[in-house]
Amino acid sequence: MASVDVGVALLGYGTVGSAVHRLLVESGDEIERATGHRLRVLRALVRDAAKERSFEPGDGVLTTDFAAVRDDPGVDVVAEVMGGIDPAGRYVRELLEVGKPVVSANKQLVALDGAELFAAASAAGVQLRFEASVCAAIPVVKVLRESLVVTNVHRVLGIVNGTTNFVLSRMEQGGGYAETLAEAQALGYAEADPTDDVSGADAAAKMAILGTVAFGSRVTLEDVECRGITEVEEAHVAAAAELGMVVRLVGIASLVDGAVDVRVQPALVDRAHPLASIDGAFNAVMLQGDAIREITLEGPGAGGIETASAVVADLVSVVGTAGTGFLQNDACWRQLPRLDMDAWRSPFYLHLEVADRPGVLAHVTSRLAAHEVSVAQLVQHLRDGEATLDVVVHTARYGDVAGAAAEMASFPEVLRPPFIAPVVAERPL
Amino acid sequence: MASVDVGVALLGYGTVGSAVHRLLVESGDEIERATGHRLRVLRALVRDAAKERSFEPGDGVLTTDFAAVRDDPGVDVVAEVMGGIDPAGRYVRELLEVGKPVVSANKQLVALDGAELFAAASAAGVQLRFEASVCAAIPVVKVLRESLVVTNVHRVLGIVNGTTNFVLSRMEQGGGYAETLAEAQALGYAEADPTDDVSGADAAAKMAILGTVAFGSRVTLEDVECRGITEVEEAHVAAAAELGMVVRLVGIASLVDGAVDVRVQPALVDRAHPLASIDGAFNAVMLQGDAIREITLEGPGAGGIETASAVVADLVSVVGTAGTGFLQNDACWRQLPRLDMDAWRSPFYLHLEVADRPGVLAHVTSRLAAHEVSVAQLVQHLRDGEATLDVVVHTARYGDVAGAAAEMASFPEVLRPPFIAPVVAERPL
Repeated sequence: MASVDVGVALLGYGTVGSAVHRLLVESGDEIERATGHRLRVLRALVRDAAKERSFEPGDGVLTTDFAAVRDDPGVDVVAEVMGGIDPAGRYVRELLEVGKPVVSANKQLVALDGAELFAAASAAGVQLRFEASVCAAIPVVKVLRESLVVTNVHRVLGIVNGTTNFVLSRMEQGGGYAETLAEAQALGYAEADPTDDVSGADAAAKMAILGTVAFGSRVTLEDVECRGITEVEEAHVAAAAELGMVVRLVGIASLVDGAVDVRVQPALVDRAHPLASIDGAFNAVMLQGDAIREITLEGPGAGGIETASAVVADLVSVVGTAGTGFLQNDACWRQLPRLDMDAWRSPFYLHLEVADRPGVLAHVTSRLAAHEVSVAQLVQHLRDGEATLDVVVHTARYGDVAGAAAEMASFPEVLRPPFIAPVVAERPL
Repeated sequence: MASVDVGVALLGYGTVGSAVHRLLVESGDEIERATGHRLRVLRALVRDAAKERSFEPGDGVLTTDFAAVRDDPGVDVVAEVMGGIDPAGRYVRELLEVGKPVVSANKQLVALDGAELFAAASAAGVQLRFEASVCAAIPVVKVLRESLVVTNVHRVLGIVNGTTNFVLSRMEQGGGYAETLAEAQALGYAEADPTDDVSGADAAAKMAILGTVAFGSRVTLEDVECRGITEVEEAHVAAAAELGMVVRLVGIASLVDGAVDVRVQPALVDRAHPLASIDGAFNAVMLQGDAIREITLEGPGAGGIETASAVVADLVSVVGTAGTGFLQNDACWRQLPRLDMDAWRSPFYLHLEVADRPGVLAHVTSRLAAHEVSVAQLVQHLRDGEATLDVVVHTARYGDVAGAAAEMASFPEVLRPPFIAPVVAERPL
């Protein structure tokens, strides 16, 4: 098959954009072998065309004029690697509308406006791909959309934020949350302003995208129940260890009786569970479906070159499927309700701090029993006249567990509202 | 885009073939959403058309005449799920030659004749896909060929045989090889004749395919250096535990200075390494490349429905890329030499059984030193007047380690030829 040049434009030419260009040049032969085409960067939209670049863009490539990209008939496919919501979202929509397929690395954009952008792509009969928007080079979107097309994936479990995974892993070796976070910052694993990571917002955006793709129903950021790791204390980490578990920030997207539940929160993960052994700043996503039991993908979830490699893979896939109709239908093809929070079923962990008085344990366990919540493991420790109670309960409705916890919190002996987290175990407890 | 029917033929209609048909029918809507096409099974080649089938093939679908499949103009794509080398290989070649793309689940065929079949597909301008031939539903071939197209994968590490992984995992809990294998057979994890699994032949076929795909150079079964698990003893498993490792059957495909090295053998895997925690009969493949560091894929590596789901994903991918030239060039585009066995570099483990006499330890360590092999860890145990020496050495040439071991074997104090296995550790020792 004769090689045909494919014109590529980049929106943005920073770390990722210039790395995409470099990979397209350096791996031109590999790409031509796979696709029969030579991908050439013709345009790169930047704010400042005079700025020094880490990979030479070539004469006449840089432009500050979006219309020059959109209206260039030589541009066959565009990679959006500029980030931000506006103008990136507007640009992507306009490009799709004029029939140019788009590859986006923009997590926030896809999580926020994915449904509208999918619809625009579908209406125009072009593809929108976004592998790099979730966990960089881990090919979870491709695997979900292409390899697992007939497996009815009903649950996605993920460790999708490396910063929090690093912090929580380190806390196992002793050390409080604040000092461990400071260490992560010193090592470059956490930003100077780590809010997006520790609040769970970064993970929530990724889980919103994964939930949307897995279930074909729109999951926006607002649909994700999100708690970060700021409430995680040394006591929880120590109790988890005693229970044979670790504390991790886990994203869970589930399809339950036709309703969608997507959440990010600290969870206790059984040591034997594959997610427990995910190393430091790595990410992992586990896909559970009917025909496959479970497939787990693991790797570096961030990084400029890793992200660029996912962008290039998407560009290659766009070229390799052009004109076939593949993945051109609206990815949000149904509208599923959100699962009522109380109806969420899981094994749970509760951490209580109580006054060391007779009858407290009976009080606590009677509240659980009254809500038909059954105790699987219980550890009590004494310290300075106070006691901590760490309880793992069998699979129960969250509404029942939270109801029992609310009643416990009203006891004078219970010193703080109980900390509740789901338990992720190899097998149902 | 208007839906167009795509005619599918199956070679074979056993467990996998009938499951492929069932998935195509039951997931017809999902496939149509992804591809814009409805895949319909028009023909299924069988030996006995009268036999009872687990999924009703439909009137006129079953045929015992291969020509009826090959010459049917309504058949757009064929899935080979019959197994065996002949006539499967002949059929696949003929189908490719008449321009029909083929999806094969046949590990032995792809490992043995892959290069010729890729060339035939390339010459005819059609695709040959074979995801299901390696680790069932784990999408490692797709990820290697499509997602990691620009990452220069230079090393593939895999636990690609569930039977041996189960047996070796169980041996950690005590128990010899023979009794553990019998247990695996009783549980259905091992065949009545487990030769293909325990000899490493099954893993070798998978690693041959992965090496071929990763490096673009023909790796046949004969190019794979293969040792099975029959030599693994309780003493090795116990020593590994003492060294913080586990024994696993590991496939390693490496590109070293332009030469290819593909091997399957028992290896000591550091407990902190992701491959150490692969559960029982599961499989995992780790892909190491320049732009991605490493991506690990894990899941069930066998099973009828899992295999069928991979076949369907390949059918969907063929339809989604038809006519674009994608993956139609010869997958074996270069001819790389095989790495000389002696030049293979790795950390190694040696197990020695020696007479408990003065000077033995000095003898052994002096042989290693003479070959410039440096000791990282050493454990000596005494039992009944004999001693076992378990030694881990830093990364060395295999030729040097084997040379030292051969010299040790000639000492009268060394009771058996040393057992040598590579060490797979998180970081270079």
